[in-house]
Amino acid sequence: MFVQQPIAILDSGVGGLTVAKEVMRQLPREKIIYFGDTARTPYGPRPAQEVVRFTREIVDYLIQFRPKMIIIACNTATAVALEDIRSRVDIPVIGVINPGARAAIKRTQTGCIGVIGTEGTIRSGAYELALKELSLSVRVISEACPLFVPLVERGNFRSNETYETIRQSIGHLSQYPMDCLILGCTHYPFLTEAIAEVVGSRIELISSADETARDISTILHDKGQLSRGEVLPIHQFFSSGDPLMFKTIAQQWLGEQIELTPVVWQVPTIG
Amino acid sequence: MFVQQPIAILDSGVGGLTVAKEVMRQLPREKIIYFGDTARTPYGPRPAQEVVRFTREIVDYLIQFRPKMIIIACNTATAVALEDIRSRVDIPVIGVINPGARAAIKRTQTGCIGVIGTEGTIRSGAYELALKELSLSVRVISEACPLFVPLVERGNFRSNETYETIRQSIGHLSQYPMDCLILGCTHYPFLTEAIAEVVGSRIELISSADETARDISTILHDKGQLSRGEVLPIHQFFSSGDPLMFKTIAQQWLGEQIELTPVVWQVPTIG
Repeated sequence: MFVQQPIAILDSGVGGLTVAKEVMRQLPREKIIYFGDTARTPYGPRPAQEVVRFTREIVDYLIQFRPKMIIIACNTATAVALEDIRSRVDIPVIGVINPGARAAIKRTQTGCIGVIGTEGTIRSGAYELALKELSLSVRVISEACPLFVPLVERGNFRSNETYETIRQSIGHLSQYPMDCLILGCTHYPFLTEAIAEVVGSRIELISSADETARDISTILHDKGQLSRGEVLPIHQFFSSGDPLMFKTIAQQWLGEQIELTPVVWQVPTIG
Repeated sequence: MFVQQPIAILDSGVGGLTVAKEVMRQLPREKIIYFGDTARTPYGPRPAQEVVRFTREIVDYLIQFRPKMIIIACNTATAVALEDIRSRVDIPVIGVINPGARAAIKRTQTGCIGVIGTEGTIRSGAYELALKELSLSVRVISEACPLFVPLVERGNFRSNETYETIRQSIGHLSQYPMDCLILGCTHYPFLTEAIAEVVGSRIELISSADETARDISTILHDKGQLSRGEVLPIHQFFSSGDPLMFKTIAQQWLGEQIELTPVVWQVPTIG
């Protein structure tokens, strides 16, 4: 019997849905198992050790589905738990930080790259490390934006408050010779329009979500593991918190990507 | 003694220098060994079997330098020889077709993608295959442009003749709902400006060269094989034809990427 091995995507909550959506769009043959830890979101302000423990618990749960790859679709968890998870499983584990870093290195001409993210992500210095691992001469300007995730979770994408918050948080970045800015949090793509208006057209915005989906494609192809199925896969979504609220947001965010695709919604027992 | 394993890049001639240049820019710590088969260029009009034989000869030559990865930086050779070379060596072999295909899938919104290349590349259907392997619903419009490589090799990037040739070859593509066009030949990035003007701003041009460098970075990182050297590598360039002509073109094309980097120029004995 042919059993299609899924791609497991985990996140602190709903932010990782931006990665899931891009995987569905770029790799429509792949089956996705998504876990949103909505009961314990957000991870951003938590101590690193706690985030590592939560991530381990979710991976232990997802591994029963025999995924061919694990995606840590949360920048905070990638920053502190990626290497730990890599050492615990024997399948590829992809975070959202390196794909964004690689895309920025590809695009920058000035060599000055901006990064915005949660406090946990920025404090870890993970983007700076990933960028400097690739290039000897790159200059990195980082800024924690703790007020952005609450805006997104309230669906507040383009209000006056949103523009004001963005202006106060990152308005000063335009003083640098930066030509790209990494949206180092999977929630931020929802603020793309407002952020672009504040930083100006000279600075290109890089979405970790899009770039991660691209890297998943590259690595699965390199390993000869791309799905060849001719039938649409049935995705499975798990959330640790209120399942109805998760389903409502997910259906709204995933939009057309799940219109034609069968989806199963479940509540796991972990933690 | 620490010996840095190089990335081997091979091409039918000088076209693959666009890939080498992007690898140098995106991965400045990596040592490159480049082989340009200038004595037997172009590969485009040759029978597939001959291209396979030439590619094997070059790989047999380059393998003595113990590369960690082989890049077939020629679309024609990728189209007909990639799988053959993959089955003969036990290191990753990357072609220029899949990276371009992945980037196009990532960018397209309309689902209609254009591909231009040499007669050999287009006849092989390799891009169409790569694109359809990823997506069930993508529409691909391909066009062979045999007159473009001679324009580039004569340094004829923006003359009236160039615009006229491009207009006659691909002017009709704008009738399709295409939103990206893959430059499926490593020579074509030199014609970017003229092609963009002919096809219009609605169609984004995708350079295989840039995307291949990005994929090299992804795969080396996944395998934990990125170079960590703090010293600039010494690149080596081989050409089977006139070494002086090759060196002149390479210095011109690589420009600032080799200003600070030591380079060794050599003539190999193969074929």
